[in-house]
Amino acid sequence: MADKITSRSEDYSQWYIDLVRSAKLADYADVKGCMVIRPNGYAIWEKMQAALDRMFKETGHVNAYFPLFIPESFIAKEAAHIEGFAPECAVVTHGGGQELAEKLYVRPTSETIIWSSYKKWIQSYRDLPILINQWANVVRWEMRTRLFLRTTEFLWQEGHTAHETPEESQEEVLRMINVYKTFAEKYMAMPVIMGKKSDSEKFAGAVETYCIEAMMQDTKALQAGTSHNLGQNFAKAFDCQFQTKESTLDYVWATSWGVSTRLIGALIMAHSDDRGLVLPPKLATRQVVIVPILKGDKAAVIERSNALADTLNKSGISAFVDSSEQNSPGWKFAEYELQGIPIRIELGPRDIEKNICIAARRDTLEKTEVALDDTLAVRISEILNTIQQSMFDKALQFRNDNTYEVQSYGEFKKVVEKGFVIAHWDGTAETEAKIKEETKATIRVIPEEADYIAKYRINEPGTCIYSGKPAARKVVFAKAY
Amino acid sequence: MADKITSRSEDYSQWYIDLVRSAKLADYADVKGCMVIRPNGYAIWEKMQAALDRMFKETGHVNAYFPLFIPESFIAKEAAHIEGFAPECAVVTHGGGQELAEKLYVRPTSETIIWSSYKKWIQSYRDLPILINQWANVVRWEMRTRLFLRTTEFLWQEGHTAHETPEESQEEVLRMINVYKTFAEKYMAMPVIMGKKSDSEKFAGAVETYCIEAMMQDTKALQAGTSHNLGQNFAKAFDCQFQTKESTLDYVWATSWGVSTRLIGALIMAHSDDRGLVLPPKLATRQVVIVPILKGDKAAVIERSNALADTLNKSGISAFVDSSEQNSPGWKFAEYELQGIPIRIELGPRDIEKNICIAARRDTLEKTEVALDDTLAVRISEILNTIQQSMFDKALQFRNDNTYEVQSYGEFKKVVEKGFVIAHWDGTAETEAKIKEETKATIRVIPEEADYIAKYRINEPGTCIYSGKPAARKVVFAKAY
Repeated sequence: MADKITSRSEDYSQWYIDLVRSAKLADYADVKGCMVIRPNGYAIWEKMQAALDRMFKETGHVNAYFPLFIPESFIAKEAAHIEGFAPECAVVTHGGGQELAEKLYVRPTSETIIWSSYKKWIQSYRDLPILINQWANVVRWEMRTRLFLRTTEFLWQEGHTAHETPEESQEEVLRMINVYKTFAEKYMAMPVIMGKKSDSEKFAGAVETYCIEAMMQDTKALQAGTSHNLGQNFAKAFDCQFQTKESTLDYVWATSWGVSTRLIGALIMAHSDDRGLVLPPKLATRQVVIVPILKGDKAAVIERSNALADTLNKSGISAFVDSSEQNSPGWKFAEYELQGIPIRIELGPRDIEKNICIAARRDTLEKTEVALDDTLAVRISEILNTIQQSMFDKALQFRNDNTYEVQSYGEFKKVVEKGFVIAHWDGTAETEAKIKEETKATIRVIPEEADYIAKYRINEPGTCIYSGKPAARKVVFAKAY
Repeated sequence: MADKITSRSEDYSQWYIDLVRSAKLADYADVKGCMVIRPNGYAIWEKMQAALDRMFKETGHVNAYFPLFIPESFIAKEAAHIEGFAPECAVVTHGGGQELAEKLYVRPTSETIIWSSYKKWIQSYRDLPILINQWANVVRWEMRTRLFLRTTEFLWQEGHTAHETPEESQEEVLRMINVYKTFAEKYMAMPVIMGKKSDSEKFAGAVETYCIEAMMQDTKALQAGTSHNLGQNFAKAFDCQFQTKESTLDYVWATSWGVSTRLIGALIMAHSDDRGLVLPPKLATRQVVIVPILKGDKAAVIERSNALADTLNKSGISAFVDSSEQNSPGWKFAEYELQGIPIRIELGPRDIEKNICIAARRDTLEKTEVALDDTLAVRISEILNTIQQSMFDKALQFRNDNTYEVQSYGEFKKVVEKGFVIAHWDGTAETEAKIKEETKATIRVIPEEADYIAKYRINEPGTCIYSGKPAARKVVFAKAY
C-alpha cells in the first residue's frame, strides 16, 4: 500500500512526488532526466490518447509516423527554430559502429523532418490540405526535471498541417486549440484559459502560438497545450511551393499543435488530494471498485458483488471487485483512494439484507446509499457524471478565487505569489522581461475567449502597470511550471 | 493515381517497392535507413495495434513506457546481449550541448533498461508476475534496408514479463507466440508455422526463442513474431532476486516477445497483386467503397449511394462514397484496387431501377449482384467474411504447394530456391552453418505445432541430409527476408 504522502499544505512539491510514486504512476529511470511511465500512469495516457485521437479524426486528421532522427542540416534550415531547439537536443554521432558523416538530432519536435517530406508530397493545391498527426516520443535535454511535467524524454502527439491560404491555416490553429480546450474541460475536468502567447513565449519558428493555461492547486500556471500558426516559415525553409488554383506559385501555409504526457502531471496537480489521486471518471480506466465486506456468508457477499460488477460493466461502467481476504476493507479503501478510483461501493451482509449498497465518491469522500435494484446502473452513472462536473466546478471556483485584477505594480507584487494576476501590459518585450526578472512571473496568456474577456474586461485599454505607458488590453500573469 | 507497378513475375522486389510507394504506404526518409510511414500505411498499423492490444489485455497484460536511451553499462551487463546488439546501435554522445560522461544507446530492444526497473520493483513473490507490454520505436542500424521489412528505425511492441517459476515463464512464452499465431492467421489471413529457432538463430540473451514463420508470394520465408524464454539471464545480469513462498531467494524468470511494423510488409507480400494492395477485411480501415455511376439523375444516384453507406456503417461495416466528378469510375476502380479496399460497390441508374448493386471483391476481382433490400448489410458482411477466409485458404494452399520434403542434399539444393524445404538435420550448428554458406538457406523453424508435425512427420528420426549423421527430427529450411 501507500507509503506516507506528504500533505499539500506541508510541502506541495513533495506531495506531488510522493503521490506519483505511491500511486505507482511513474518513476525516475536510471537514465538522467528520463522517466518510466508505470502501468497506472500509462493507463491514464491511454484514456487521454483514445479521446484525443477520436477528436482529431472527427476533425479530419489522419495519423502517420516520421523518423526519430533529424539531420543537423534540417534543423538548421529555420533560423529561429535551430536557435530555440539545438541547445536542448540529444545528438547521435555514431551508428552501426561508425562515426556518422552528419550528426543526427533526436527529434525535439518534428517540423523540419516532416516538412522535408511535405516538400516531396506537395506540388499543387490539389495536394492540400495535408492534415497529419503523429503520436511519438521526443527528447529535450533538461537539467531540472519533474516527473511528467518536465523530463528529457516525453510522449506526445504533434499535428502538422499544410494549407493553401493563411485563412485556412489560421482556422486550423484555432480549431485545434479549441479541441484541446474541450478535451481539458470535458475530459480532464480542468478549466483552461485559451489565448495567445506573447512573442517571447511563442514556439521557435512560429508566427503566433495559441495555448491553453490551467491553474494548479498551488495557484501556479501550467501550459497544457499549444497550437502554432507557422505562417510560411517552414515552407520557405524547405522551399515548399505549390501551384495555386490561379496557376501562380506560392509557399504552403502551415500549422503545428501538440499536447504531451505533461497533461498527466496537470491532471494530478489540478485535482488530487492528500489521500492520493483523484481521477475524473472519463479518464479512469477503472471507474468503480466494489469492496465486499466479508462477514457472515462470505460466498454470498462475493457472489452478489460479482453480479453487481457484471451489471455495471454491461451498462458501460468499468467496475471490478476486490474480494481478496489478504487485505482488510480499510486497507482496500485507502489503496483505491490512493489510486483515484472515482466510486467505491461497499457491500456487506447487512446491506444485502436491506437491499442497498454504499457508494463513496472519491472526490468528496461523501457516502450515499444506493438501492440494489434495476435503477442501480443509472444511479451509479449519475454519480459518475456528478463527480465529473463537480470536479470541474471546484477547479473553476478555485481559479476564480485565486485570480487578482490589479492596477499597479505594487499590488501586482503583493498578489503574484497567490495566483493569476490580470493586469494591463504595454505590449513590449522589455516590460515583460523586467517583470519576469523581478518577480519570476511571466505572461501566461493573452486571452482570446469571449467569456473570459468579458468577465475580466480584458480588452479595456488602460495604463501598463510596470511602464505607465498606454496598454491596449490586459493579460494574465503568473508563475508557471 | 497509381504510377505503373512492375508485375510480380517481372521483378518481385521492384513490385514490392512500386506497390508500397504507389499506394502511399511508406516512403524512404531523408535520414539514411529510416522510413516515413504514410497515413495509408499507418492506418494498417493502427488496426494491427488495436487487435493485438486487445489480445494482450485479454491475457492479463498492461502497458507501460520505458526510456528510449540505455546507458552503455546496462547493455553490457548481459554478455550475449551486448555482443548481439552493440554493433547495430545508434549512440548518443552529446546532450544539452555537453559531451556525456556515459554514452547512451538508442534502444534496439528494452530488456536491459526494463530489468533495471524490475530490480527495484521486485522483492517478493507477491510482486510477481509482472506482465507488461510497451508500444515503442526502436533503432537497429541497417546497411541494406527495405521499407517495412528492414529499416533502421521501426515501430513495435515488446512484452517483458517476470515470473516466479520456469514453468510459469515457459507457459507465458507459449501463450504469447500463440497469440501472435492467432493474430497472423485470423486477422492477417496469413498462415504461419509456430516453433523454435535453432540456437544460432535465437535472440541474443535468450535461452530459447519461439517464432512464427510465414511464406511470402516469392516463396521466401518471413519471421513474423518472436517470443523468448530468457530464463534467469537478465535477472542474473541485473541481480534481480526475490523471496520465494518458501522464504528462499531465487532469481526471477523472464520472457520477452514482440512484433513490429514488419508485419505490414508481410501482409503486403503475402496477399497483394499486380494491381496493388489486397487487404484482409479485418485490417482494412475502409472496407467498402461505393462508386456511384453518375449518369441520368446524378443527385438521385448520389443520394442512394450515401444511404447505402449509412446502412452499412450502422451495421458496423466501414463504408464510404466517392462521388467526385473530377475522376471517372474507371480511375476510381483502379485507385481503390491499388488501395486494397476489400469490396467495391458500383451503383448506377439502371442498377437502382433493378433494385440491385454490383459488389466487386478486391481479392478475386469477382463481381456479384446484391439486392438493395433489407438483406444488403448481411450479404456484404458475408462477402467480407468470405474474403477473409478465402485469402487465408489461398495463402495456405500456396504454402502447401511450395513445401518440399527431401531426403538428400542433392534434392535439397534443387528445390531450395522454390520454397520451404523439410529435411532431417543433425542438430549441430556446424551443419546449419555449412548449409547456409552453400545455399543461403537457414533453419527457419523447428515446428512445435501438432498439425504441422503430423502432416510432415516432423518428429520422425532419420539421417541428416548434409552430414549423414542421425537426426532426431526434421526442420524447415528456407531463404528468408
